[in-house]
Amino acid sequence: MSQIVTFGEVLMRLSPPGNRKFIQSNRLEFYFGGTELNVGISIANFGGRVKHISCISDDFIGNTAISYLNKFDVDTSSIVRSSRPLGVYFLEVGAVMRPSAISYNRSHSSFSEIEASMVDWDSSLKDATWFHWTGITPALCKGAYETLKEGLILARKKGITVTADPTYRSGLWKYGKDAKSTLSELLEYSTIFIGGVNEINEVLGTDYGYSNEDFIEASKLLIEKYPSIEKVFDKIRTSLNSSWHKIRARMWNGKEFRESEDLDITHVVDRIGTGDAFAAGLIFGLQHYEDYKAMEFGSAACALKHTYEGDVNFATVKEVEAILEGNTTGRLKR
Amino acid sequence: MSQIVTFGEVLMRLSPPGNRKFIQSNRLEFYFGGTELNVGISIANFGGRVKHISCISDDFIGNTAISYLNKFDVDTSSIVRSSRPLGVYFLEVGAVMRPSAISYNRSHSSFSEIEASMVDWDSSLKDATWFHWTGITPALCKGAYETLKEGLILARKKGITVTADPTYRSGLWKYGKDAKSTLSELLEYSTIFIGGVNEINEVLGTDYGYSNEDFIEASKLLIEKYPSIEKVFDKIRTSLNSSWHKIRARMWNGKEFRESEDLDITHVVDRIGTGDAFAAGLIFGLQHYEDYKAMEFGSAACALKHTYEGDVNFATVKEVEAILEGNTTGRLKR
Amino acid sequence: MSQIVTFGEVLMRLSPPGNRKFIQSNRLEFYFGGTELNVGISIANFGGRVKHISCISDDFIGNTAISYLNKFDVDTSSIVRSSRPLGVYFLEVGAVMRPSAISYNRSHSSFSEIEASMVDWDSSLKDATWFHWTGITPALCKGAYETLKEGLILARKKGITVTADPTYRSGLWKYGKDAKSTLSELLEYSTIFIGGVNEINEVLGTDYGYSNEDFIEASKLLIEKYPSIEKVFDKIRTSLNSSWHKIRARMWNGKEFRESEDLDITHVVDRIGTGDAFAAGLIFGLQHYEDYKAMEFGSAACALKHTYEGDVNFATVKEVEAILEGNTTGRLKR
Amino acid sequence: MSQIVTFGEVLMRLSPPGNRKFIQSNRLEFYFGGTELNVGISIANFGGRVKHISCISDDFIGNTAISYLNKFDVDTSSIVRSSRPLGVYFLEVGAVMRPSAISYNRSHSSFSEIEASMVDWDSSLKDATWFHWTGITPALCKGAYETLKEGLILARKKGITVTADPTYRSGLWKYGKDAKSTLSELLEYSTIFIGGVNEINEVLGTDYGYSNEDFIEASKLLIEKYPSIEKVFDKIRTSLNSSWHKIRARMWNGKEFRESEDLDITHVVDRIGTGDAFAAGLIFGLQHYEDYKAMEFGSAACALKHTYEGDVNFATVKEVEAILEGNTTGRLKR
Amino acid sequence: MSQIVTFGEVLMRLSPPGNRKFIQSNRLEFYFGGTELNVGISIANFGGRVKHISCISDDFIGNTAISYLNKFDVDTSSIVRSSRPLGVYFLEVGAVMRPSAISYNRSHSSFSEIEASMVDWDSSLKDATWFHWTGITPALCKGAYETLKEGLILARKKGITVTADPTYRSGLWKYGKDAKSTLSELLEYSTIFIGGVNEINEVLGTDYGYSNEDFIEASKLLIEKYPSIEKVFDKIRTSLNSSWHKIRARMWNGKEFRESEDLDITHVVDRIGTGDAFAAGLIFGLQHYEDYKAMEFGSAACALKHTYEGDVNFATVKEVEAILEGNTTGRLKR
Amino acid sequence: MSQIVTFGEVLMRLSPPGNRKFIQSNRLEFYFGGTELNVGISIANFGGRVKHISCISDDFIGNTAISYLNKFDVDTSSIVRSSRPLGVYFLEVGAVMRPSAISYNRSHSSFSEIEASMVDWDSSLKDATWFHWTGITPALCKGAYETLKEGLILARKKGITVTADPTYRSGLWKYGKDAKSTLSELLEYSTIFIGGVNEINEVLGTDYGYSNEDFIEASKLLIEKYPSIEKVFDKIRTSLNSSWHKIRARMWNGKEFRESEDLDITHVVDRIGTGDAFAAGLIFGLQHYEDYKAMEFGSAACALKHTYEGDVNFATVKEVEAILEGNTTGRLKR
Repeated sequence: MSQIVTFGEVLMRLSPPGNRKFIQSNRLEFYFGGTELNVGISIANFGGRVKHISCISDDFIGNTAISYLNKFDVDTSSIVRSSRPLGVYFLEVGAVMRPSAISYNRSHSSFSEIEASMVDWDSSLKDATWFHWTGITPALCKGAYETLKEGLILARKKGITVTADPTYRSGLWKYGKDAKSTLSELLEYSTIFIGGVNEINEVLGTDYGYSNEDFIEASKLLIEKYPSIEKVFDKIRTSLNSSWHKIRARMWNGKEFRESEDLDITHVVDRIGTGDAFAAGLIFGLQHYEDYKAMEFGSAACALKHTYEGDVNFATVKEVEAILEGNTTGRLKR
Repeated sequence: MSQIVTFGEVLMRLSPPGNRKFIQSNRLEFYFGGTELNVGISIANFGGRVKHISCISDDFIGNTAISYLNKFDVDTSSIVRSSRPLGVYFLEVGAVMRPSAISYNRSHSSFSEIEASMVDWDSSLKDATWFHWTGITPALCKGAYETLKEGLILARKKGITVTADPTYRSGLWKYGKDAKSTLSELLEYSTIFIGGVNEINEVLGTDYGYSNEDFIEASKLLIEKYPSIEKVFDKIRTSLNSSWHKIRARMWNGKEFRESEDLDITHVVDRIGTGDAFAAGLIFGLQHYEDYKAMEFGSAACALKHTYEGDVNFATVKEVEAILEGNTTGRLKR
Repeated sequence: MSQIVTFGEVLMRLSPPGNRKFIQSNRLEFYFGGTELNVGISIANFGGRVKHISCISDDFIGNTAISYLNKFDVDTSSIVRSSRPLGVYFLEVGAVMRPSAISYNRSHSSFSEIEASMVDWDSSLKDATWFHWTGITPALCKGAYETLKEGLILARKKGITVTADPTYRSGLWKYGKDAKSTLSELLEYSTIFIGGVNEINEVLGTDYGYSNEDFIEASKLLIEKYPSIEKVFDKIRTSLNSSWHKIRARMWNGKEFRESEDLDITHVVDRIGTGDAFAAGLIFGLQHYEDYKAMEFGSAACALKHTYEGDVNFATVKEVEAILEGNTTGRLKR
Repeated sequence: MSQIVTFGEVLMRLSPPGNRKFIQSNRLEFYFGGTELNVGISIANFGGRVKHISCISDDFIGNTAISYLNKFDVDTSSIVRSSRPLGVYFLEVGAVMRPSAISYNRSHSSFSEIEASMVDWDSSLKDATWFHWTGITPALCKGAYETLKEGLILARKKGITVTADPTYRSGLWKYGKDAKSTLSELLEYSTIFIGGVNEINEVLGTDYGYSNEDFIEASKLLIEKYPSIEKVFDKIRTSLNSSWHKIRARMWNGKEFRESEDLDITHVVDRIGTGDAFAAGLIFGLQHYEDYKAMEFGSAACALKHTYEGDVNFATVKEVEAILEGNTTGRLKR
Repeated sequence: MSQIVTFGEVLMRLSPPGNRKFIQSNRLEFYFGGTELNVGISIANFGGRVKHISCISDDFIGNTAISYLNKFDVDTSSIVRSSRPLGVYFLEVGAVMRPSAISYNRSHSSFSEIEASMVDWDSSLKDATWFHWTGITPALCKGAYETLKEGLILARKKGITVTADPTYRSGLWKYGKDAKSTLSELLEYSTIFIGGVNEINEVLGTDYGYSNEDFIEASKLLIEKYPSIEKVFDKIRTSLNSSWHKIRARMWNGKEFRESEDLDITHVVDRIGTGDAFAAGLIFGLQHYEDYKAMEFGSAACALKHTYEGDVNFATVKEVEAILEGNTTGRLKR
Repeated sequence: MSQIVTFGEVLMRLSPPGNRKFIQSNRLEFYFGGTELNVGISIANFGGRVKHISCISDDFIGNTAISYLNKFDVDTSSIVRSSRPLGVYFLEVGAVMRPSAISYNRSHSSFSEIEASMVDWDSSLKDATWFHWTGITPALCKGAYETLKEGLILARKKGITVTADPTYRSGLWKYGKDAKSTLSELLEYSTIFIGGVNEINEVLGTDYGYSNEDFIEASKLLIEKYPSIEKVFDKIRTSLNSSWHKIRARMWNGKEFRESEDLDITHVVDRIGTGDAFAAGLIFGLQHYEDYKAMEFGSAACALKHTYEGDVNFATVKEVEAILEGNTTGRLKR
């Protein structure tokens, strides 16, 4: 059976309840997340078969993380273990004009110990028909970059669809490699680009603006430079403040430009992982619908994710489709 | 002293905290509710004398339910007990475009065992001057229908005011009786109709639209067909999404049509039982004010209910009247 | 790979925190349990491959239950779904001379709808080398009895080891079948008996006492009457009160009588599922050790279970073996 | 119908969860209690008809307190309201050799405002056949003393049984009256004395020791001095530490001395209100059994109270009687 | 090093979680607050050196309060202790059209026992360069008024800047002094007035309206009457309802009128202490910026406070300045 | 004023509530601890003036840790900050025969970055009269060892009393230094040894047994080898299981051997930090009492610590002394 494979760090998220700060609390809530894992679990919740590959601590925290993945029926058989602790991030959830704040403890985590020799890509990708990667992984450490690159080489050799979400985060990239050239190299193995003009500018060294015209131009140039890439999908967030967002998406699939309607998220419950929910919805959508509906599915999935606490999108296909059919008034389901 | 009597199932409501799903939680919050009980408790909180009649499990859960009613000073002396378990419903609270979801465990509950012979209506209605029923009760099982019918016959014989809230819920009505004819039959014993064109259409087999003109026409026809009915009150909800509603009400009291202003509920805390809060406010209002103010009282009570967790409306008369006087800015009360 | 198969109802357990009664609380903690499932999960926590077969509600509660099993890596592929609600039990946890109390809501649960035709035993037992059943399942309803019997017939045909824990609970057995004859019939297909003189007396109609001599006599007679049974294992609990228990075990394996030392559980955390932990430890033990050590493993597993909240035994093989090696002083593990 | 009447302050109890100190917590749990109220609620939980008389704040805290009494079906119709705040006490729950600690905020509470003119004793005692008072009430303020005295005078005039629990607490008695003479005066109206040699010594100015002989002598002298008193009941607590107590009782009923067996409370859950549980059990017992069994009922009720969080004893008659029948091993009730 | 000194009651705040009422809960969250303390802690969180002077109960509650101040590095060395209990307030948090409600228990609190002789102002103000008082303190009791007056006299003698926030609260002022004349007297010692036309009208006996013109006129008259006052700052709140506020500020600094932009608080988390956050931001601002930016800093600080649970503003200088720079979209900080 | 200085890592402790495992929970409770900090806070709670020196992360977690120290009035002015994250440990609390389990995330923590040049010992020890160190610090990393050594050299030069608690933990000591020689070197600067035969054997390479005779011999030899050491104090724990411990202490002060009575901790609430509580009680005791009473004070402090959740001992001098006076029955303090 065909599998979607994700590869990346699993982090423990620790946050005080509600809008509390750590200084105000002696209780925390915890979840497990990580940008690629969030994509994987969300697709599993849509009913897709998903495997996640990672390097996880060999202690009761790591056991808890693996049982968390099992809970969502994500295949954990290719996960390797390490004596280092699992990466952690601390989150204070903002509201209105107060931004949420994150502090990481990941630079010497179990995942930071990964090396290409630890993952057996042949067996890991045996049933894979899709591979998803993000710019976070190669930004973490040399071993992660090299492991990912090996996986991508094999994925391309097998003709697997490869989605790239080359998010550039300036707080990372501390181990010596350069973001621009590294992401460029990895895009050579990718077939679908999830990102907007910021990411394209970062990779191409251009300075396109946010207009639809610029997006189309940028996408065309990207595809020209990276011929393996066939389509570009971009999610656009407009934030009134921490508690009120709007989401829409646009795409250039090599043939046409399309843009979806704004979805109005008037009361954000949890904003973490919403970009991952878009990627997951898009990937699932591209497997089941034509491009425009796939993008709309991603956009609606992203909007729904804002209503779940934690990093994970729990939305089902039926729930996302209800929004595509215009049922956004939240009528009680008995 | 004059008593308002309600009759219906008492359910235990179980829901994870906040917007969590069951899969995300290992804790639940519980309440007791039920559409008629919610009306009763709300009226008791306004200071009315209320008796609730039901059939409740004969275990520590049933004891807890009865103590819950006692807490609100609702008369529990006519409640009968059964060896079957209390009905339960599970609730996941939605947000924004995610609807709340409910799963019931009630089809073999203690209330489902009720039979007409179990309730001594003569003594139960001894002090009653008002009787309230809803379309949920006859939809549950034959015994509930027959018990209710006996009560209604006696209520009419005693000249008690009877409010009917013939909510039609398609997931019920599984025991053989037909909703349309059953509700029709029970409306014969009712004097005030709480419902809109949907409910009228269901009962009369008509297809009126939502305009005020249609509402007036529908109401006139209803009163024509059911001469015991004197007045029709309708609450109209406009949902932007799960978290943002607007409420207004309209009425045809046989003489005039009136419509109240929209009340804007920008941050819904809990939407369950808000219809019941309208009915309770209306009933209490009709006992103390003229029709239009009674309807406004119901509408403001309904709006306030959206700010309380659980099924119960805690609003006092003073708090509802403050809204009628235009104090809707939520100024702190010291 | 060889699998241990369990079959039985999955129940949702709802209890107020700590020693609270329902009347004192508005919060509950929930778990999923069920005597056979508890055995299965415990064996999975020892590292065994386990499949659980059941009939679970087709709603978000049922989905949560299945994800709970997945979390422990229990194979859920043979579970069937039903439109009825999942069975529930309510628990108030006692202390000292106050007993814990349970109220069930299971008589019309999803599992009560099971029929022999719903379970495909051929595929369900494909990889099975062990089958475990208890007296709860045939006590629930005719369908459960018939389904179990079909499974047992096939298990015996395949030469699978069958453990029987014929717990007799007088509050059940309400659907027409007689406990004595039914359990007798099912024991014909069993190879290992987990139970003491009470259970033997129930099945054989004898009245042995609690002495070791009586236990040996009773066991011999049981094996004589049911030649498929090879060994008898009995767990003995001595309760000072709800909070302080002692556990030991004894066995007659057809050749020798052995008795283990008392394990002193001075501060019971959670007593539910401790018998199931004994069965699980014993089963796992019988697969890996000789009889006496298997029984000691079961007894230590049972003792450890008293220290975990919920129905599940989280003890690992290493943790149980530490107790067998005499490490019972609870020295901190860094 | 005959009613048991209690009179005294209702206090809000605030304590951090578990064994936490206030400095360690930002959450509290709250209950309502008060020594006489605790007696009343416990008797109501046995099925007795109980009225509690008090003076309660006229705010949402007072409303909550009254609803708390209603919940247990205690008659609140004779409660008066005051503009002062409800009394509060803060509790830190100790363990082992750490004592629990209490800090009061009651000296200007609503109850401290009570005056004899505020309670209409004629109507309050209309259905009363029993009146219970403790030494806390006259120790609080002049108005409480005078109000109590008026009630006692009427109670004696009506021939009602009067139980006195003249607990002497040195931290009180600050308003000018002397404990010895005041308690002496009030004992003149009492028929049953609940207390031991400490209390007798306090009232008589004697110095009896703790031996049974001394207890008998002291009781005889007490009855001699206060001829209205017929019986003396004493509960004896032996504390190994905060978490482990033993309870027994002894009595001199004017004819014979009896002593009950020790009840061993190896794991104290909550020690507050256990003396009140003894008084309640004794009072209920004296209404239904002969003296010795009544005392045993009180002692078992007291022991059970140690297993409930909060001030209230939830034990039912059936549960107390189970202990009298020797069922102290806490066997699970299904 | 220069210190900002605040003087006033410390109260314990007790509220059920979320929007619950006391009748719905058995848990509370607690904080310590008090209008002057809130100002002090907020300034300490900006990095200012702050001393708070008060009279606090000499029990474990008082110890907890002092440790709460220490936590924020507020100097507690001038606090005196009393045998009376700490003042308490109970809060039910409203939503939408439901106002929050407060009930106080402070009239016989530890602070109510304060007398001028208890505070050694010479040593207390040794390092002070700023003194802040509000109209709550002189409204509580004679001792508080007299103590404050002594402090103000010394403050003026030392040439310390004195901010006055003469909030008039009609529920107080019960000990005999008249609000108008007392506040007038204390304003003689003040240099900066924090308040609007309501407060000016109260003090001057005028009836200015809310227009900017009226505000300027009123401010000019105030400065004329109280020549020590140099500047007037006013915070204006527009409430759509309990959950949605807007904040802006205006000023007359003797030379020019300025008005800030509206800040839109679409989802109020906690409204208590937001006025104090304005005062704190303004005071800190006046020490570091020119008047208009100081006022804007106060306004942004006030807006941010609405996003923190409890009475305290946790915003740092960096966070407030981010808003002044226009970063109000709540972009996640990693 | 004279100060007691402690130096060591501050760790965040994360544990599920009660006896839950991480796999069973989604909530955690957190505290800050660390063996030397625990000693410091405990002494501060006795009223001693304490400074703690450490290296703490420069993020909101580090801020929270510092505010935690401030809360107990521990001087934080010599703490340095680092860009690395604060060390974390995860704790699962055992019960009965289940041991508690700990997993660390500290090897690349902020404290691991400390270097001798970062601490200005001259100013840090300006007011110091006592310095306390443990074997954990030099076991962590070279920088910690070197920093500690510099502090010890200065402490000895200033003639400060130095307590050494050379706990040997085999899971540490991974950076290259040898425990035996390093601890030996640091003991040269110490005046009081807190430890037993295990620690002495580790340092001297001897193999003394647990008898008092061996303890005396070992102590004498230790003092002979390290002439700066004057006294040896040893705390002895006897564990029945995780939930039931006994504590006593013994000493050789160069002149006499003394041994204290067993303290029976029948219900352990939290065992973490109890050794630190002994050290803190001993240190405080040596400053105020003669040696034997100091040791008893330490032993009673240790026993009391078992009753507080978290790492910190909250016991006051009065509470410890009450135990020394024999008040161990936990009588309620009103």
